[in-house]
Amino acid sequence: MTLPQRVTLIDVCLRDGLQDESVFVPTQAKLQLLDALARAGVLEAEVTSFVHPKWIPPLADADALAARLPNLPPMRFWALVPNLRGYERSGNAPLFGITTVLSATDAHNQANLNCTSQESLRRLKPVIAAAKADGRSVRAAISVVFGCPFEGEVPLQRVVDLCEQLTAAGADELVLCDTIGVAHPRQVAEVIGQVRARLPEMPLTLHLHDARGFGLANMLAGLQEGITRFDTSLGGFGGCPYAPGAPGNLATERANTFLTAMGIATDIDQAAIEAAAVQAKSAVAAGEPIDTKA
Amino acid sequence: MTLPQRVTLIDVCLRDGLQDESVFVPTQAKLQLLDALARAGVLEAEVTSFVHPKWIPPLADADALAARLPNLPPMRFWALVPNLRGYERSGNAPLFGITTVLSATDAHNQANLNCTSQESLRRLKPVIAAAKADGRSVRAAISVVFGCPFEGEVPLQRVVDLCEQLTAAGADELVLCDTIGVAHPRQVAEVIGQVRARLPEMPLTLHLHDARGFGLANMLAGLQEGITRFDTSLGGFGGCPYAPGAPGNLATERANTFLTAMGIATDIDQAAIEAAAVQAKSAVAAGEPIDTKA
Repeated sequence: MTLPQRVTLIDVCLRDGLQDESVFVPTQAKLQLLDALARAGVLEAEVTSFVHPKWIPPLADADALAARLPNLPPMRFWALVPNLRGYERSGNAPLFGITTVLSATDAHNQANLNCTSQESLRRLKPVIAAAKADGRSVRAAISVVFGCPFEGEVPLQRVVDLCEQLTAAGADELVLCDTIGVAHPRQVAEVIGQVRARLPEMPLTLHLHDARGFGLANMLAGLQEGITRFDTSLGGFGGCPYAPGAPGNLATERANTFLTAMGIATDIDQAAIEAAAVQAKSAVAAGEPIDTKA
Repeated sequence: MTLPQRVTLIDVCLRDGLQDESVFVPTQAKLQLLDALARAGVLEAEVTSFVHPKWIPPLADADALAARLPNLPPMRFWALVPNLRGYERSGNAPLFGITTVLSATDAHNQANLNCTSQESLRRLKPVIAAAKADGRSVRAAISVVFGCPFEGEVPLQRVVDLCEQLTAAGADELVLCDTIGVAHPRQVAEVIGQVRARLPEMPLTLHLHDARGFGLANMLAGLQEGITRFDTSLGGFGGCPYAPGAPGNLATERANTFLTAMGIATDIDQAAIEAAAVQAKSAVAAGEPIDTKA
């Protein structure tokens, strides 16, 4: 079995993990989680999203968090940026780069971003250009690549076209997201193969959810296709609003056990990442309830 | 990704699943579970073990169960047989075949069977011969192929040698067991490759546990190696005494979701197998506590 020798896990707990929780984790606790991630050897983390605070109350402290981001080399920080206004807010924060997002289907893009995928692409182009002009790297994420809660199956041609358009717009890396956890390994291999056929040089990251428990099997399919970058989330945080109670993102600590068992280097210490996961669960349990009526 | 078009799941809940539970599920409830498995489309089931009733109290009704086995074609029944005396007990029960077991390591074989692996092999030869003489098929299972709680890593040469010896003894099929759930996909591929190199025509079954959540990823590795037979257990029953509280066998209902998602035929109806899993959990919850002091 041919697998990569080294894999990078990008921990997205502070962004994707916390955004669906019904509590606000204080900025200080978030910074402590970042510190725990860094001490465990995690090399990259997505730390927040510069969306309007009212949209995603758990991430309402994006500005405060960005202003207090510590220097934890070699750890690199990413933040999700939805639009130019969000990009302006990212200001001088010590970000290695930004993550942009649009959906593979218009229905999901409408539900999430209130416009079509192509309109999102049009709006993201100046964001990508601004980040590039500032010397930042750009991860361009595509949601619901493997299945959409509204449209069901997603035509692969749409995905490949969006990958090509985002690459042309200047993205440095594409993030293929199984937003609702419906991907299966055969599909993972097929999607990666098709994207690679069109964009052989483009770095690809897999963002897997574990709603059906297929997360590690899908990771294996990705590894076999040569994928070396995976979004994972400490503690498995990041449920999908369409699958209440189901496991969320593929857990960083579980992915690390899996990779380590197969002799794949990650630089992440298993005991330390498991301790960090416990810390994340405590932080969420102690979070401030969000008044959803506000 | 090249995968088999059709896979058979051998449900081992009534044997491996129940044997570690601290309750006795009445014979009638076991028969109702068999009926539910048959109605869901499960084609093969391991129904009990003819060990001495004192060894494994949850399976103390082996004789009664065997005497009442229903006719549920096309479903095939297997029973574990530890020795000649156990084989005699299997009598005229309508079994398609028997399962024999020995361990890949002497330490595990000693702990489980109170003798070395080679001594087990010697004792099993007449059992296999008796079953063959009766027109029954023989599954020869090897425990702790992928890792031993006592010896740790298991030399692959030992596994291959045992496979060859069991084949020479007349086994129709080898069952490679990840008894404590420590296998990883790269290892699964390697073990199968080595066994196949020596015994290219021998049917192989994978018996996976899910203690670390690697079950489906290991199944994928097996499928990629052309394995079409897997032991699974309704409800995931079958914990390992060395990993209390951990998930047990790979759950039949979860394996079926996975296979079905990838377009692999199993003949098992997902809704019916999930209902059967609920029934199994109810049966265990309502089981009679076993007096371990008896």
